[in-house]
Amino acid sequence: MHNDCMTTVRIAVAGASGYAGGEILRLLCGHPRLASGELEIGSLTAGGNAGTRLGEHHRHLLPLADRVLEETTPEVLAGHDVVFLGLPHGQSAEIANALPPSTLIVDCGADFRLQDAGEWAHYYGGEHAGAWPYGIPELLVDPSTGRKGRHELSGASRIAVPGCYPTVSILTLAPALAAELVEPRVQVVALTGASGAGKAPKVQFLASEVMGSARAYGVGGVHRHTPEMIQALSAAARQPVEVSFTPVLAPMSRGILATCTARLAGGTTLDQVRAAYTQAYDDEPFVHVLPDGEFPETGAVVGSNAIQIGLAVDERAGLLVAVGAVDNLTKGTGGGAVQSMNLALGWGETEGLSIVGVAP
Amino acid sequence: MHNDCMTTVRIAVAGASGYAGGEILRLLCGHPRLASGELEIGSLTAGGNAGTRLGEHHRHLLPLADRVLEETTPEVLAGHDVVFLGLPHGQSAEIANALPPSTLIVDCGADFRLQDAGEWAHYYGGEHAGAWPYGIPELLVDPSTGRKGRHELSGASRIAVPGCYPTVSILTLAPALAAELVEPRVQVVALTGASGAGKAPKVQFLASEVMGSARAYGVGGVHRHTPEMIQALSAAARQPVEVSFTPVLAPMSRGILATCTARLAGGTTLDQVRAAYTQAYDDEPFVHVLPDGEFPETGAVVGSNAIQIGLAVDERAGLLVAVGAVDNLTKGTGGGAVQSMNLALGWGETEGLSIVGVAP
Amino acid sequence: MHNDCMTTVRIAVAGASGYAGGEILRLLCGHPRLASGELEIGSLTAGGNAGTRLGEHHRHLLPLADRVLEETTPEVLAGHDVVFLGLPHGQSAEIANALPPSTLIVDCGADFRLQDAGEWAHYYGGEHAGAWPYGIPELLVDPSTGRKGRHELSGASRIAVPGCYPTVSILTLAPALAAELVEPRVQVVALTGASGAGKAPKVQFLASEVMGSARAYGVGGVHRHTPEMIQALSAAARQPVEVSFTPVLAPMSRGILATCTARLAGGTTLDQVRAAYTQAYDDEPFVHVLPDGEFPETGAVVGSNAIQIGLAVDERAGLLVAVGAVDNLTKGTGGGAVQSMNLALGWGETEGLSIVGVAP
Amino acid sequence: MHNDCMTTVRIAVAGASGYAGGEILRLLCGHPRLASGELEIGSLTAGGNAGTRLGEHHRHLLPLADRVLEETTPEVLAGHDVVFLGLPHGQSAEIANALPPSTLIVDCGADFRLQDAGEWAHYYGGEHAGAWPYGIPELLVDPSTGRKGRHELSGASRIAVPGCYPTVSILTLAPALAAELVEPRVQVVALTGASGAGKAPKVQFLASEVMGSARAYGVGGVHRHTPEMIQALSAAARQPVEVSFTPVLAPMSRGILATCTARLAGGTTLDQVRAAYTQAYDDEPFVHVLPDGEFPETGAVVGSNAIQIGLAVDERAGLLVAVGAVDNLTKGTGGGAVQSMNLALGWGETEGLSIVGVAP
Repeated sequence: MHNDCMTTVRIAVAGASGYAGGEILRLLCGHPRLASGELEIGSLTAGGNAGTRLGEHHRHLLPLADRVLEETTPEVLAGHDVVFLGLPHGQSAEIANALPPSTLIVDCGADFRLQDAGEWAHYYGGEHAGAWPYGIPELLVDPSTGRKGRHELSGASRIAVPGCYPTVSILTLAPALAAELVEPRVQVVALTGASGAGKAPKVQFLASEVMGSARAYGVGGVHRHTPEMIQALSAAARQPVEVSFTPVLAPMSRGILATCTARLAGGTTLDQVRAAYTQAYDDEPFVHVLPDGEFPETGAVVGSNAIQIGLAVDERAGLLVAVGAVDNLTKGTGGGAVQSMNLALGWGETEGLSIVGVAP
Repeated sequence: MHNDCMTTVRIAVAGASGYAGGEILRLLCGHPRLASGELEIGSLTAGGNAGTRLGEHHRHLLPLADRVLEETTPEVLAGHDVVFLGLPHGQSAEIANALPPSTLIVDCGADFRLQDAGEWAHYYGGEHAGAWPYGIPELLVDPSTGRKGRHELSGASRIAVPGCYPTVSILTLAPALAAELVEPRVQVVALTGASGAGKAPKVQFLASEVMGSARAYGVGGVHRHTPEMIQALSAAARQPVEVSFTPVLAPMSRGILATCTARLAGGTTLDQVRAAYTQAYDDEPFVHVLPDGEFPETGAVVGSNAIQIGLAVDERAGLLVAVGAVDNLTKGTGGGAVQSMNLALGWGETEGLSIVGVAP
Repeated sequence: MHNDCMTTVRIAVAGASGYAGGEILRLLCGHPRLASGELEIGSLTAGGNAGTRLGEHHRHLLPLADRVLEETTPEVLAGHDVVFLGLPHGQSAEIANALPPSTLIVDCGADFRLQDAGEWAHYYGGEHAGAWPYGIPELLVDPSTGRKGRHELSGASRIAVPGCYPTVSILTLAPALAAELVEPRVQVVALTGASGAGKAPKVQFLASEVMGSARAYGVGGVHRHTPEMIQALSAAARQPVEVSFTPVLAPMSRGILATCTARLAGGTTLDQVRAAYTQAYDDEPFVHVLPDGEFPETGAVVGSNAIQIGLAVDERAGLLVAVGAVDNLTKGTGGGAVQSMNLALGWGETEGLSIVGVAP
Repeated sequence: MHNDCMTTVRIAVAGASGYAGGEILRLLCGHPRLASGELEIGSLTAGGNAGTRLGEHHRHLLPLADRVLEETTPEVLAGHDVVFLGLPHGQSAEIANALPPSTLIVDCGADFRLQDAGEWAHYYGGEHAGAWPYGIPELLVDPSTGRKGRHELSGASRIAVPGCYPTVSILTLAPALAAELVEPRVQVVALTGASGAGKAPKVQFLASEVMGSARAYGVGGVHRHTPEMIQALSAAARQPVEVSFTPVLAPMSRGILATCTARLAGGTTLDQVRAAYTQAYDDEPFVHVLPDGEFPETGAVVGSNAIQIGLAVDERAGLLVAVGAVDNLTKGTGGGAVQSMNLALGWGETEGLSIVGVAP
């Protein structure tokens, strides 16, 4: 269907007035297959914003400014080859079930990320919708064969885009766990920019409240991204991994910086750690492991699909300290979604995606 | 000498054009004993900025705008009852040795913070100058007697103001360690505002580089504030405490948010933790432990001498997660310095200091 | 009534969970008559937030954290000597009419700022409630006698606190107009921090939307603060003054920087301009005119009640360029309100207010 | 030479570690002729940073991270088809004179922007190097023929990239002046992000000093970008135009928002104004005139080469208020430079440039 030569792939974006939808559209506007006519941006839909111009919500998407948002319904989304869903958690399943199996659905919500119904019930409540291939192409999902996430994404017609925190935390920790260089208990303290909170207007995310201030929230293991990390890191480690995750809201729009620590298995050196990361990521176009003594900053990945990782060993405390940075909206959401779409359609994985950030 | 009734206490500030010096002066401008004539702001000194107006460096200190900075020399500083030192690390000892023993010296540098010469040599290099009473009045220094830091500060004539990161990390973790509710291995991931880097112009601290970005640095246990934390927390715990510390530069001017974790001793509950913190801090004017489910934000303590602490237990991971917030320049430096001065002079400990922040 | 010796003045704040209310409370917490018992903070009221703890809304007001917000009704506010109103525009009149004439009402809303009913109808619509003494003590209201705003505020029982933009724009331009050094046509382009938009959650004021971006709004003379500027500047100039005002939202929490220009009357020199400002403001505790070549920054007045003004003459273009900076919440709202209260009660005008900002 | 089919164009960037150089490289990394092999990034040079890795200075330019910076000398730059100069003002002329006439030199400095030697002497001092074609392709340079800037840039071998403030101010004002809808006296108050100050470390541009604060500088017509505006706007108006320009430093990394005002010629309506802008810019790929009632924000053009313009008429004050927004580093510097290069080389003008910003 969708990767036939000379066929135009029609793409719909549900939740187009939100941040995930806007980021997907930003990337599609620069996708080379849009210029060549192989990709076409079809319906853009919304909930309460249906009927308004896209330009009112995304002042930066000039080529699409006059598009009018339609209602998010299966009828509107039908007839597209690809449907991106940027909906509130819990709304994707119903839409997905109403679309034909041949439609490629790329869901930026949480509905299909977790394999374990118990975890779903614990962190989200309600009925578990199921699990779809998890959209981290670079993730080692079977250390015994070297099989990575992209194998499950190639040709897929259903994809669950990971949460933004899990994307960076998992990629930053997985090689050490897979190589058994650290104990299976990890801690993640991650700062996020405010766009991670979405676009629903709430007092605590007003600019006045956020600027000039850093705030911890979801402290004590209660954040809903925790079970995703446990699931993926346990798979990489081939044993259950304990994850402590603390998110912090930082006064910036984009970016996640995840400081990840784990106790080193006896005698592990930084060289061994570095070797494991090199082996895991050397061929990866979007994963950049920094040289010794350099550590990432989120500003360097703004708008890019890259993840930058810095590695250190705290010898005195016996810990690996690995720090990862991504743009939460790009690699953490919309870029990961487009990368997964490229794989699913048989297109070049990096098409329309850059490793060059917009800095300073 | 300096706490005689009716005597005016003359205060000098060395390093007055820097951030520590500026914050001390901001607080002294609002000190009630300035209005009453019991306190007088004498010489303000600087290195390269000597000869310039204070107003060129601190546009916010209007009452002192036309003061001209003098050279930082023992001669200029002599003749003051109190001398605050806001100098680069390693410069305080020489000045201090040239001043009479009766002068109250409050050093915001690192020179006299560490008791262990080996630690000094490891983290700073050069000769160890010695150790002065450590300026955290609220810190339990002897759990067996309940003796706190303020006992050593009352009437002291030499005070070492702690580093900004240690102030918040130590106060956030000490009660749990003193009560043996957690294992003596702790992790601290702390965000700081850019003023923590001081006022020396460097490319990496330019606004363009810092705004919109978060950056890890000093990763792997190499930050010089680590041994202070080890020293104070080990004293509180009455056993050696292992500390892993990762600092992160966040895009804000002021504030430190420290996420502190430690593995719970078997069976410890949040109630037990809360009881320990209540016992430790219930009478403390500047320490505010937040109710269950609330966590601090640095914006709430801007310009204030308060530390706000939030507590959670991550049952699944078996960890205490304690989050502390201070203004790095106030409670973390200048406010701690003035609080210590008040104690040393026999004045009310809270004079000139507020627990009300400037927010939003 | 309220300035009797030994009497405690009871103060209520309506709209206490908003930014104006929060700033008034911040200043009252530091007012010297609170410590002495001459001032007491009574009822704190709110609309939708009634029934919640103040600490949920203002994390920085620790001494009042456990106060519970009451409903904003005349009954709750009755029995106070002073009532501050921080309500949405149009709600003050009804409350005010229900309170006794002896109650000092300080209204931070717009209801009683404009003398001209036509102007009110044009910019706000609805019925004109009337005009109260306008809370800019430093404003020359009668150049022939030198009479300033504070004469109308001393002993007043009703006070209209000016808008934040007018406070700084009027004080920055009035002396030049009063001295006829410029033509009666002025332009104001003013940046505001996001707190100026208030605390109602709206998408365009989310942190993600505001950080890293500057945005013009209310362009073309439509901003409601325009008629206040016309009214006060025309009084100062003793002739109608034409005002063009363009507001800009800047990515900061607090502060207004107003760039004000006017064509110089023939031959006016910078020295003449400076002389006029010196004469107008030399005795004013809160107005600081900067020396030649220095221009204000909002960071220097954060949390302070000062206004800083810089003056320049653009000889080539024949213009006066006067730049003023205030904290929109302090001098621009809550500080101006407390200053006016002090005058009305016969207290020292500067009590509880500082000219020292919290910087950097 | 440089636009022959099948030839690879070799490009050097002098000043590659600075912000202008970095932005040019960011755009070249995404230029389609780099992928196709028609464009090659040759020598990257620097002053004090020669010998270091580019990755130390630009963490976002991953594909070029390991390039080592060479010395900025004519010898190093020789042998390239295109040389971009991102040097301190006054250093370009010497380099340019040492390169062959066939080399396309695109100078981001001021050396060749001004036609009038007297203006150069007044604002910069020293010898006037001359004037090169001015790199604003969209600017109407001869209203009688409709000739625009791009006619002089096509096939040029020397190009002076305008200052960032002039780019936006000129494009925002020129159509109204060219159509004689306003009087030839204009005022510009423009906010800039901190990257406009360049990368030299200075205290006043430290993050602590800039964040949370807005600061006026260069007040009174003294900013060096003023004569550029006078020159271009006078050409557009076919009569001398008086320009008052006040720059403001705002707490953001990128972006300029210019509020431009001019007195309307008698009876001019917003419709007439809009018609003039439509005629001037309707075919322009990078100029976007917003609909009535919408005004630009800099966040919407971050990383893009677009300029967004909003138009209003203040009827009461009799003024046109036109607000323009650009990214100072993209359209204001590096993007304008690449756009001009494209024209000079006979390539598509928009190649490698986007009108889609990175927002939020």
